[in-house]
Amino acid sequence: MPGLFFSFDGIDGVGKSTQSALFGEWLAARGHEVVFCRDPGSTPLGEEIRRLLLDPAAVKFDRTAEMLLYMAARAQLVDQVIAPALAAGKTVISDRFLLANVVYQGHAGGLDPAAIWEVGRVAIKGIEPALTFVLDLPEQEAAARLTRELDRMESQGEAFHRRLRQGYLAEGARNPAKIVILDASRPVEPIQADIRKQAEKVLRHGD
Amino acid sequence: MPGLFFSFDGIDGVGKSTQSALFGEWLAARGHEVVFCRDPGSTPLGEEIRRLLLDPAAVKFDRTAEMLLYMAARAQLVDQVIAPALAAGKTVISDRFLLANVVYQGHAGGLDPAAIWEVGRVAIKGIEPALTFVLDLPEQEAAARLTRELDRMESQGEAFHRRLRQGYLAEGARNPAKIVILDASRPVEPIQADIRKQAEKVLRHGD
Repeated sequence: MPGLFFSFDGIDGVGKSTQSALFGEWLAARGHEVVFCRDPGSTPLGEEIRRLLLDPAAVKFDRTAEMLLYMAARAQLVDQVIAPALAAGKTVISDRFLLANVVYQGHAGGLDPAAIWEVGRVAIKGIEPALTFVLDLPEQEAAARLTRELDRMESQGEAFHRRLRQGYLAEGARNPAKIVILDASRPVEPIQADIRKQAEKVLRHGD
Repeated sequence: MPGLFFSFDGIDGVGKSTQSALFGEWLAARGHEVVFCRDPGSTPLGEEIRRLLLDPAAVKFDRTAEMLLYMAARAQLVDQVIAPALAAGKTVISDRFLLANVVYQGHAGGLDPAAIWEVGRVAIKGIEPALTFVLDLPEQEAAARLTRELDRMESQGEAFHRRLRQGYLAEGARNPAKIVILDASRPVEPIQADIRKQAEKVLRHGD
């Protein structure tokens, strides 16, 4: 039977990597073969697009062109990595997915979120996460955690980051069955416990 | 007042460059400031995407990813070249535009043409050609005219080329007010005369 697909999302600095690594360990201990990927990325085309998009010295992108580049990377990721893994019964954990595009280029970037979901439906061809875990943190707290040099997306200012957070919360409110908003101001363990509890609901059928 | 936008389309080897150059000369002689561009291309991002897409040694693209890369290049082209030129009252002639995407990745490539038009509406933000001139030629005749080394798109075989031609004809039949199918098996002059005659209908308001 086909495997399950989870994604982690949220603004940078909220602990996505830590939580998805712990979640992957837990799934592996339950017998899942886990495949990690990142969106954009995880294919030669996707990594090239990622490099283009996140380069602080990049050309100024039209916001719509930027959104479509993310979509192209995602279509390739679905085709070459996610769909084959799911078809082989593996469990996929992606660092970001379509929701990030809706929030970054839509809610925060000024494009119509509904149009991005619409283009997304064409790009992902029915392959969507069973659950997306959004790690939510007041934007000042997230910024304080990020001490390294910021990439092009991260350096867009405080108002942009506030719109990002509001975008994630709005999408979570719109589709609570698929998008799980988690309070990421807590220690690692209770957040992870929440993730596992939510995941158990969708795993129950498959385990 | 805003300028007018024309595009030329059709399979390779049908004489698009010749016809659009002659058409541009005619427009210039009538006082138009003409801007030529090509899709994909004519911006740094567009040319990078063009290089990626047409490289015969390219990675194997998922067809949807390929379509979305064309869309990203087109969004950037509209934003940086076509929309500003039209706003400045110039006349734009593009070598291919959205229709090529619908025909190559849709009719010939297996994606849903309606889905491509839909994504296209998001990508082009209302900037569409007043007229698209499609130079139509039986595919064997077009192939015979092309003697140089074929790029990745051109080397996809005879059945693919037949579907391309059928796609152009079908789209022309669906929207004859905007898509003008021209018999390109004739000499250069009568084809160009047809183009000018059609263009005069949309120019009449502006001249």
